Amino acid sequence: MALSKPLEDLMRLFERFPGIGEKSARRMVLFLLQQPKGFSEALAEGIRKCSSSLHPCSICGNITDDDPCSICSDPFRDKSTLCIVESVEDLITLEQAGIYNGLYFVLGMLYSPLEGEEVSPQVLERLVKRVSQGDIKEVILAFSPKVEGELTMNLITSVLDPLPVTVSRLSYGLPVGGSVSFADRTTLHAALEARTCLKRGEGRQ
Amino acid sequence: MALSKPLEDLMRLFERFPGIGEKSARRMVLFLLQQPKGFSEALAEGIRKCSSSLHPCSICGNITDDDPCSICSDPFRDKSTLCIVESVEDLITLEQAGIYNGLYFVLGMLYSPLEGEEVSPQVLERLVKRVSQGDIKEVILAFSPKVEGELTMNLITSVLDPLPVTVSRLSYGLPVGGSVSFADRTTLHAALEARTCLKRGEGRQ
Ligand SMILES: [Zn+2]
Ligand SMILES: [Zn+2]
Repeated sequence: MALSKPLEDLMRLFERFPGIGEKSARRMVLFLLQQPKGFSEALAEGIRKCSSSLHPCSICGNITDDDPCSICSDPFRDKSTLCIVESVEDLITLEQAGIYNGLYFVLGMLYSPLEGEEVSPQVLERLVKRVSQGDIKEVILAFSPKVEGELTMNLITSVLDPLPVTVSRLSYGLPVGGSVSFADRTTLHAALEARTCLKRGEGRQ
Repeated sequence: MALSKPLEDLMRLFERFPGIGEKSARRMVLFLLQQPKGFSEALAEGIRKCSSSLHPCSICGNITDDDPCSICSDPFRDKSTLCIVESVEDLITLEQAGIYNGLYFVLGMLYSPLEGEEVSPQVLERLVKRVSQGDIKEVILAFSPKVEGELTMNLITSVLDPLPVTVSRLSYGLPVGGSVSFADRTTLHAALEARTCLKRGEGRQ
């Protein structure tokens, strides 16, 4: 069948999103056509606005329309704790659980030798610089409990070894094999409370 | 946390789509921000275009940018067979299976007395008029096999009773309790082939 071209084109674009297959894309487009016109206008405008006004925070990597972001510039956040997350999605998941009041550092990737993914030296350098500056006393690693997460934790722990900071990780109250993004608030809270210390902050020298 | 406003706004819009929850909406927006700028521009433009250029076909109710739609105006379609579907989504599902070459009539609803939904007299009138015109010899009812589908089939069969057309329904090769939109091509094909006759086309009088 020749679907009408605008319909077909828009379905193909929706299908590019993660987790959206052909049938979901079709359902979304047909839903869109049944809404009042204001909805599609707001959606188109919202997409344009996000893509033009949002960018990574120069300090933590969070998505923001200001720089630094509202977390980095919040005077009431605990500036002695830095939580390292894989992605902005994980940062938002932790934030929305409302269980953490420190600062963040978005790594942007995990060390994944099987897929040939390294954590670039530049990122590690930025991390060391970030941890050395300011008053950071504890670094909390909040990666998803899977092989890549473990490898990345080992890497970061050794990179931070010379610095006088405590390094901990979320406890494995997290469902192993799952991901930070899909954990519920209670699980996240328990995991934060029972975080396991990897290195005491006595420094070296 | 104060998510940045454009991000929050766009997430809320994505959440309005059927089957898209909070986490999926968030994932979609973050995916969008990681794509080259051309993608969000194409998406915003595609949404605007769909919402401004698409409308229901005046003959069958299919979504189209022409009128009549490409199915109604296709000289190679079998004009003696009319398939009645609940929704455009179901029409597209049947079309994309590539197993049917007749025409369509989108009912737009099912008779659902428990939810207080009637098939409006206007729609039934349009249907009777449509079936009376042209060369229609067979009407195929392609509703999802559930209570509302059965009730609607009874209603339409009795409404069409005076007319000299055969009325049939898809066979229950369809998974009962499921829906037309999620059936695979093979199931749809089997269901079309083994359709059950409800009324022979000898007319009345
Ligand atoms: Zn920041
Ligand atoms: Zn049509």
